[in-house]
Amino acid sequence: MTPEPNPVRRSARSHRAILDATFDLAVRNGYSKLTIEAIAAAAGVGKPTIYRWWPSKGVLALESINERMGTATDFPDTGDVAADLASQIDNVVRLFCSDVGAVFKGVIAEAQGDPQVAAAVREAITEPRTRQCQARLERAVAAGQLRADIPTRMMVEQLYGPIYYRFLLGTEPLADYDAHTMVERALEGLRPRL
Amino acid sequence: MTPEPNPVRRSARSHRAILDATFDLAVRNGYSKLTIEAIAAAAGVGKPTIYRWWPSKGVLALESINERMGTATDFPDTGDVAADLASQIDNVVRLFCSDVGAVFKGVIAEAQGDPQVAAAVREAITEPRTRQCQARLERAVAAGQLRADIPTRMMVEQLYGPIYYRFLLGTEPLADYDAHTMVERALEGLRPRL
Repeated sequence: MTPEPNPVRRSARSHRAILDATFDLAVRNGYSKLTIEAIAAAAGVGKPTIYRWWPSKGVLALESINERMGTATDFPDTGDVAADLASQIDNVVRLFCSDVGAVFKGVIAEAQGDPQVAAAVREAITEPRTRQCQARLERAVAAGQLRADIPTRMMVEQLYGPIYYRFLLGTEPLADYDAHTMVERALEGLRPRL
Repeated sequence: MTPEPNPVRRSARSHRAILDATFDLAVRNGYSKLTIEAIAAAAGVGKPTIYRWWPSKGVLALESINERMGTATDFPDTGDVAADLASQIDNVVRLFCSDVGAVFKGVIAEAQGDPQVAAAVREAITEPRTRQCQARLERAVAAGQLRADIPTRMMVEQLYGPIYYRFLLGTEPLADYDAHTMVERALEGLRPRL
């Protein structure tokens, strides 16, 4: 007896194939040349299947990036806030210098002229990680290691602004980013006055 | 006697018309929809005239932005480095929130996939202003107001990174940027130890 085709399993397989094709094509040809047509062809699905799950190329590319970031941007908590931030920032820099970063750059570029993609970047990438960073910083505030009178969102901008500056403007090679020194410098203004 | 047509004056007029048409069209339709064809039509010149002076749309748009920035990004020197930086950064934020910023965003977006445009952004915009900022910071170092052991280029990344972060990621409204507080925070790590 031939087994019935399993639509759930087939659907999961298509979902996976679309995400992989998106990332592979974006890396190979550059994000700006990525099209839903090419993704559909490479994944062996029809365009409507893609649009059933994702509203646009930008949102699809973001998911393919996000799953590849995995736990690399999680914040450790060893009790030493400076060391924890520097180690997380090292991971971010490594990601940004990889294929993930190359695709992310393309999505950020598209976001400059497309408010929907810009909102998706914030929802999928920056907001969740900002909140994770704030949680780590708030534990340091509670431990008396950081000033309680500075909003942690402002601290996040000080810590991550210089990374995005190099990443998107290329003023210096991002790979040379000295996370340890930059974190130390930023924290000097954030420590409680004695 | 009819005056001879003056080719120098006509040339200057075309040059001016091209720059104005570029900026106006980029503001009206968005940078991504800007084409050399449309600029040529609006300026009343042929495409070869444009390519005689500018290699690409990106470089032309950059010049139209740069001349509109004028002296707004110059660094004052009142002797109070914190006040001088905050006042310059206020001007930068105001520019970035204006039409100039909207066009600049489009050019930066294009730069993400085009190394020639990326190099032009650095040469025309970020490098000259980085050097101007370094000169102001170096006078503050000489006056004993800032630490001499931190490269001034690194100080520039700390001061301007958070602005570009808001500008390009939109994590918070750039118009609400508190230049005074952000400069104070950054300088706390940059002042000489007593």
